[in-house]
Amino acid sequence: MSKPQPIEYADASPETRAVFDDIKTSRNLKDVNNFWKYLANDPKSLKRTWESVKEVMAPGALDAVTKEMVYLAVSVTNNCGYCIASHSAAAAKAGMTKEQFGELIAVVGMANETNRLVNGYRVPIDPAFDK
Amino acid sequence: MSKPQPIEYADASPETRAVFDDIKTSRNLKDVNNFWKYLANDPKSLKRTWESVKEVMAPGALDAVTKEMVYLAVSVTNNCGYCIASHSAAAAKAGMTKEQFGELIAVVGMANETNRLVNGYRVPIDPAFDK
Amino acid sequence: MSKPQPIEYADASPETRAVFDDIKTSRNLKDVNNFWKYLANDPKSLKRTWESVKEVMAPGALDAVTKEMVYLAVSVTNNCGYCIASHSAAAAKAGMTKEQFGELIAVVGMANETNRLVNGYRVPIDPAFDK
Amino acid sequence: MSKPQPIEYADASPETRAVFDDIKTSRNLKDVNNFWKYLANDPKSLKRTWESVKEVMAPGALDAVTKEMVYLAVSVTNNCGYCIASHSAAAAKAGMTKEQFGELIAVVGMANETNRLVNGYRVPIDPAFDK
Amino acid sequence: MSKPQPIEYADASPETRAVFDDIKTSRNLKDVNNFWKYLANDPKSLKRTWESVKEVMAPGALDAVTKEMVYLAVSVTNNCGYCIASHSAAAAKAGMTKEQFGELIAVVGMANETNRLVNGYRVPIDPAFDK
Amino acid sequence: MSKPQPIEYADASPETRAVFDDIKTSRNLKDVNNFWKYLANDPKSLKRTWESVKEVMAPGALDAVTKEMVYLAVSVTNNCGYCIASHSAAAAKAGMTKEQFGELIAVVGMANETNRLVNGYRVPIDPAFDK
Repeated sequence: MSKPQPIEYADASPETRAVFDDIKTSRNLKDVNNFWKYLANDPKSLKRTWESVKEVMAPGALDAVTKEMVYLAVSVTNNCGYCIASHSAAAAKAGMTKEQFGELIAVVGMANETNRLVNGYRVPIDPAFDK
Repeated sequence: MSKPQPIEYADASPETRAVFDDIKTSRNLKDVNNFWKYLANDPKSLKRTWESVKEVMAPGALDAVTKEMVYLAVSVTNNCGYCIASHSAAAAKAGMTKEQFGELIAVVGMANETNRLVNGYRVPIDPAFDK
Repeated sequence: MSKPQPIEYADASPETRAVFDDIKTSRNLKDVNNFWKYLANDPKSLKRTWESVKEVMAPGALDAVTKEMVYLAVSVTNNCGYCIASHSAAAAKAGMTKEQFGELIAVVGMANETNRLVNGYRVPIDPAFDK
Repeated sequence: MSKPQPIEYADASPETRAVFDDIKTSRNLKDVNNFWKYLANDPKSLKRTWESVKEVMAPGALDAVTKEMVYLAVSVTNNCGYCIASHSAAAAKAGMTKEQFGELIAVVGMANETNRLVNGYRVPIDPAFDK
Repeated sequence: MSKPQPIEYADASPETRAVFDDIKTSRNLKDVNNFWKYLANDPKSLKRTWESVKEVMAPGALDAVTKEMVYLAVSVTNNCGYCIASHSAAAAKAGMTKEQFGELIAVVGMANETNRLVNGYRVPIDPAFDK
Repeated sequence: MSKPQPIEYADASPETRAVFDDIKTSRNLKDVNNFWKYLANDPKSLKRTWESVKEVMAPGALDAVTKEMVYLAVSVTNNCGYCIASHSAAAAKAGMTKEQFGELIAVVGMANETNRLVNGYRVPIDPAFDK
């Protein structure tokens, strides 16, 4: 097994093309991002992941830009470079302003700091938060 | 050094009491949460952290509930039990509904999954996301 | 102290050469990987780590390919780029097929997702799992 | 919003009962685990997650016990207490022996250690691993 | 396989007793901590881990209290409750004061915060740091 | 919103220049590092973070080199490439030797390993560590 390679539309199976087509239509794109081209190495994961992402990221009780910012917050915490780049773009496309991005990153940083202050001081949960 | 113990208001220094008072006034609380009582073991950290949290979490380009949900998303990713409990409560107090909570956790889960799919397939950043 | 540099065989001490020789013999390699060349900056860590890795990764109750896949699963979770690259290669050399790689990454992704669903919902351990 | 509470079968909607029934039948259980009862607070997440888990964890190119051990390796890395407890049990049920468990945890520990040695020494990827 | 249980000295094999004896002598303890009793379920891991810990934690270029504080910093970052408790005690025993503990936790918190600010802003390495 | 770009001194607002000037004076630098130039996209975060870092990293109960090594330990655990590079340099500048660096990384590796051994074996806290 060599390094994973992207599957381009021209080389894709009919099943993979169907998923690629749905991604392009749903998101109004000319081509799918590298994420999907690499995931296409495992067609079942491609299909399942796309269907899950489509359902989870659809506007519902939370709107699209909030969901994209939460996605970005997780990706920044985990230091996933690709995910930070792609979801910064997605959040901006969904309406996140430069000021909102700045505040988002500030909250992510602060939460990562206070999470460790809590760990270090072994803070027990207040009864009011546990019911 | 034994296990960290909380500093109660009655036993606190004037400097610590001043921070506790500001927390109680700003958040309309009768008493501060355990987090602040434990952090009071290091008065400089207490003061600096409270001032930073007050600034970062104040409504600005992002509103209060969005900030609390981002905080919660980070805490869930990091598995900080205290933080999940306290910021679930804070987000709810700021207006997060049960449906929004469900969608938030779903996005957090999905982001943690796709972050690893990206890592595993070693997906390179699309040029469009890198400019 | 500048950026760590690799120690090449020609420049290595007799103790380091002895470790390098054992790695090359044990794994049937012409040269050791970068990991060992960098770790050779701390000869005690080089020797200790190689001896530990040799013992831990040897086939036993688990076979070699399963151990490499577990190693890869951890590295993907932690987003260690070097480790993902080197242990993808090692797992493939030990017999992991492309289909097995796809399923492995899918399980790693799913586990990272459900770990956070558990955190978010604060799920208590079932009594049956705690005895 | 108070602390999440489990949804018991008796109180569940027909849609949730259908998922619970499928879990019980597929896994030959009298009742579903707490994970599913809590996730039932968000019926769409319950259904999507179960369908994904059922597909991902089904034996394929990797057998059931290998998949459970990979799941456990991720959960140990992330320190998800519930997941460690439930997937230790699931792996044992699928055939993992005590000796295999010991070796699994040893590999997980070693991988977490060497991941950080790589980070600290800033080891560049060998050209052989990058093609 | 049920939940891991501790191996007490009275029930231990001669090989395990030899390791327990060395831990007790080296650290001047009446009994070993739970960590070693649980690890004794895998005698090879017990022996290898103890020998590694003994070598790594011995005073050298860094003294004992600095090493214990670094250990604690990692454990706080990873949220390992047992490790935070045991290495807080070990660091205190090695001489860490309450004031040093407070500053240590503050640095750990700050580093976790700025790590994420760096990720979010995708900051490239300054040439001066890369040579 | 395109990819974040650094704010150079020549293009900075008076408020940002004041922070940059303080960083350069405090640390005796001709120019600030990329971290500060990127963070300047959010002037409030720049000012708050600099003031916090200046306070937290100042020698106190812990000296400067110990604080830098703890910072590095956290950054290695989190795999923040920029932070590893910049704080390796900062620690070396504060006096960390090559031998100390080697021992530091060894401790970080060992702690990351044993943290997971603890998780895997579900080790309960010894009563002595919990009071």
